[in-house]
Amino acid sequence: MTYPYPRPAEPAGPPTFALGVDYGTSSVRALVVDTRNGEEISTAVWAYRHGTDGVITDDRDPNLARQHPGDYIEGFERAVSEAIGQARRVDGFAPERIVGIGVDTTGSTPIPVDRQGMPLGMSAEFANEPAAMAWLWKDHTSHAEAAEITQKAAKAGLPYLAKCGGTYSSEWYWSKMLRCERAHPKVAQAAHAWVELCDFVPAYLAGSTDPRTLRRSICAAGHKAMHHASWDGLPAAAFLESLSPGFSRYRSRYDQRALPSDQRAGALSGGIAARVGLPAGIPIAVGAFDAHMGAVGAGIGPGTLVKIIGTSTCDCMVWPMEAPLADIPGVCGIVPESILPGMYGIEAGQSAVGDIFNWFASGFGGVGVGGGGGGGEDAHRVLSEAAARLMPGESGLVSLDWHNGNRTVLVDPLLTGLVVGQTLATTPAEIYRSLIEATAFGALKIIDRIESYGVKINEIINCGGIAEKSPLVMQIYADVTGRPMKVSRSAQTCALGAGIFGSVVGAAHKSVPAAQAAMTGIKAHIYQPQERNTDVYRRLYGVYSKLHDSFGLAGSGAALGNVMKELIEIRRLARARRV
Amino acid sequence: MTYPYPRPAEPAGPPTFALGVDYGTSSVRALVVDTRNGEEISTAVWAYRHGTDGVITDDRDPNLARQHPGDYIEGFERAVSEAIGQARRVDGFAPERIVGIGVDTTGSTPIPVDRQGMPLGMSAEFANEPAAMAWLWKDHTSHAEAAEITQKAAKAGLPYLAKCGGTYSSEWYWSKMLRCERAHPKVAQAAHAWVELCDFVPAYLAGSTDPRTLRRSICAAGHKAMHHASWDGLPAAAFLESLSPGFSRYRSRYDQRALPSDQRAGALSGGIAARVGLPAGIPIAVGAFDAHMGAVGAGIGPGTLVKIIGTSTCDCMVWPMEAPLADIPGVCGIVPESILPGMYGIEAGQSAVGDIFNWFASGFGGVGVGGGGGGGEDAHRVLSEAAARLMPGESGLVSLDWHNGNRTVLVDPLLTGLVVGQTLATTPAEIYRSLIEATAFGALKIIDRIESYGVKINEIINCGGIAEKSPLVMQIYADVTGRPMKVSRSAQTCALGAGIFGSVVGAAHKSVPAAQAAMTGIKAHIYQPQERNTDVYRRLYGVYSKLHDSFGLAGSGAALGNVMKELIEIRRLARARRV
Repeated sequence: MTYPYPRPAEPAGPPTFALGVDYGTSSVRALVVDTRNGEEISTAVWAYRHGTDGVITDDRDPNLARQHPGDYIEGFERAVSEAIGQARRVDGFAPERIVGIGVDTTGSTPIPVDRQGMPLGMSAEFANEPAAMAWLWKDHTSHAEAAEITQKAAKAGLPYLAKCGGTYSSEWYWSKMLRCERAHPKVAQAAHAWVELCDFVPAYLAGSTDPRTLRRSICAAGHKAMHHASWDGLPAAAFLESLSPGFSRYRSRYDQRALPSDQRAGALSGGIAARVGLPAGIPIAVGAFDAHMGAVGAGIGPGTLVKIIGTSTCDCMVWPMEAPLADIPGVCGIVPESILPGMYGIEAGQSAVGDIFNWFASGFGGVGVGGGGGGGEDAHRVLSEAAARLMPGESGLVSLDWHNGNRTVLVDPLLTGLVVGQTLATTPAEIYRSLIEATAFGALKIIDRIESYGVKINEIINCGGIAEKSPLVMQIYADVTGRPMKVSRSAQTCALGAGIFGSVVGAAHKSVPAAQAAMTGIKAHIYQPQERNTDVYRRLYGVYSKLHDSFGLAGSGAALGNVMKELIEIRRLARARRV
Repeated sequence: MTYPYPRPAEPAGPPTFALGVDYGTSSVRALVVDTRNGEEISTAVWAYRHGTDGVITDDRDPNLARQHPGDYIEGFERAVSEAIGQARRVDGFAPERIVGIGVDTTGSTPIPVDRQGMPLGMSAEFANEPAAMAWLWKDHTSHAEAAEITQKAAKAGLPYLAKCGGTYSSEWYWSKMLRCERAHPKVAQAAHAWVELCDFVPAYLAGSTDPRTLRRSICAAGHKAMHHASWDGLPAAAFLESLSPGFSRYRSRYDQRALPSDQRAGALSGGIAARVGLPAGIPIAVGAFDAHMGAVGAGIGPGTLVKIIGTSTCDCMVWPMEAPLADIPGVCGIVPESILPGMYGIEAGQSAVGDIFNWFASGFGGVGVGGGGGGGEDAHRVLSEAAARLMPGESGLVSLDWHNGNRTVLVDPLLTGLVVGQTLATTPAEIYRSLIEATAFGALKIIDRIESYGVKINEIINCGGIAEKSPLVMQIYADVTGRPMKVSRSAQTCALGAGIFGSVVGAAHKSVPAAQAAMTGIKAHIYQPQERNTDVYRRLYGVYSKLHDSFGLAGSGAALGNVMKELIEIRRLARARRV
């Protein structure tokens, strides 16, 4: 982070530590970090016990993705115990020197809970009922309910979608709750309230899960639950009643003073503390989503774009709340304090990046390059080596990176991938590179959109698996955007971000920026744009933009504006006929 | 062939036979056929001795493709001797019952010859000079000269390009001669004349190769040498002089009464006859190109479209010369009597069909389907089986089949392939099927274009390797076009067509149509369009057409009209920079 404040001197006295706990899709990670300098002294990962790779699925419904809430509790104990055990072997560490705990999770991952705030899935009655489990972020069973919410909010002229790109998603809080209300009345009846995973964990650790009073994260509330101060918190009771009679009860069981993560959610309860080898009473920060805490761990600040690049990307920016900021069309969310206190959090993203590379490498890339590798890491390595030898433009290919739709700036899940320029000499490595370039052009579209609304981007810091592992991708991103690509020093920025919030609620630092200045950094190697490449990519970006607008802007009257949707409709009819 | 005339009764008396000789790119095939019923009683193939797979190439210039003319002579002797030897073992056959010989060859494949008409490449002086060999149809060294010819003819307002689609090709007669004139003055000086391979072979067999008097094929002259009666044969001497001073000498050493193949080129000379086990004096038909004689062998007649489907396609139609026929824009050639006497020959084609399937199967299709097959027949089999299980439309994909440019109807080599509609679930078999469908849509564009100019198509007969081997392709073609797909009974229609002309010049039949009625036929199985598929394909064809026009019509002002050319230009610059 090229930080606007001077780096503070390390405080005198014995070191202090923070604990960051990061709940991912398949496992939970605990990280012990030195609050003076961000040194990561121990880390431990525990894979969830239930489901396949931690996810409970249903062969009859590919949209279903649930998690057993018991895994969250056991996961905390297992991962934290181990991390603390490892840390004990480090000079200067002692459990009582942990000053605070931060928690980040996937989301929106709401959990139906009883009157005491305990997950229904942990009760004997619902032990085998998927609807009583946590509804994982990637559960899409509620797509009809999402469309209904979008439609009803728009029809009623209500502003609730203004901060989330205009379309409510099947991945989000109210869609999932409404789906349960409709399809699983027994669970719905038993559900006194619904609590986001990132709110449940801190409350559970603090020993006080009463849904009416537990601290709600502004990050989850603002990005997923249509919470905003300008309409007094959650959507009005009348709107919720219009979705389903009685549905507004969930609004009344929700503390709408949603908070950023530099605020305390509570203090570690004695029982849990004993089980993980920590003293009781350690302050716990309000939770938030993984990508947002990851942005903090990567060093986000005004002017810094953090790109978390994995199977998809999450792009995060912040903007001082005292400065004017317009809604940015096509950007997923603009939420006060969702990333850093006192600043708007701006979230954008690409719905598939690594997923596209994996799809191609495993299905299409093997024979021509390695002689039948069967995909996987080996296919990526062979394709990357061949692709790295290519010069920009020499394949004659341009692709559109919409294999999983387009999240930003078109906000349209009904878009698909395209490759143009193939000849009989086109190689797998050329297409692989073209797909990487397409995601880079998509990234540049987001940068252009954000900047064109006055939010200047001074630096870009990347983190996540692809930023760590692929110099080829990072160099292409530098060349396509014409900007240096920095990579976060930490390989576990989400857990580090959680630790940073732990350090703040534990008073090791006075503010999140101060903690970041001490605890975050970038790798020494910075990918610099190379002029001979940026020149070519500028021209190729012109081609990409033409395709982007011709295929992506359905309403523009472009001749090809409906081609992808027409194909999806033909596909739907064909598949329906097969059944 | 659903022939307009009644099938004649088999003549009484002993059987007679015809010899068809088919000069391909890598080998020459001889076929002995029963003139009464088209029964193919023996066949033999001889692979050319020189070059790689019969083609002389140059590592420094991928455009160069030549053939040693000695291979044509040795090839005739080897293949015909063997075929005759085999035929001798058939009841009722005797060499003296061969009534005529027909010859078809690749083209335009011009050969520089001396004053006596013997190929320069066979002389001691030029034994190792590639420019003195036959310039094979796929030699592209003369692309600059082709562009110059197109430009000069257009600029001068001359009509020479009207019958060949408006653009003169680097594959054709005058381009190659002009290239030699410019780049190989020693050969050019020694070249008394240039003779197409299909004219050289009959003349050589007849023992009279004098270039001033040897019979020239109207098929070669009309399609490749800008020969047309309306401008008195070949282009005017003044035009040729404008290309290169002295160039018109080649016009004056060319018998411009170009002839169809029901005319005699001569009679088999005694020396050659003795070497192959035939009597001297057998009539030899005027030669023609392989695809055109193949169309005859497949049963072409008014209303019948013959599709020869291999790595690319050649689509042939005929039209009575007494009926009015407009130029059909985008169709490669309309030449009087180039296929059948008394009829216009209409030639269209797709520049890549099997080549696209091979490119995909060998480079991209293996891993995802068979676990690393490494392409080849096995990859095609696995992909075809999986693709056959798909229903039209269910992949959500549409492709453009322009991986080698577009020959008809856009006549633009600077177009490239496109696939749209990919998702993260798209499989290799889905793309493979989409590419097959794309070539079917391309075929339908040609059908639509020809019919829209008043040439009604009543039936379609397919031949060539893909028609023989791929029921999947044939069924998709039937479903996409909504027309039955018939397949020629013979697997060697070019050699059979040559045999048909041999039977006519040998008086076994009074006319080519009469010979066709007796000697050609279709396979019993006809691929019928299935209504539930044609409905879907009609809708997909609408999408294909939108893409076709948006990317293919550069001059139309469509936003994407120059995308493919822009990419080719970027590619050119990138590659130039690498050198």
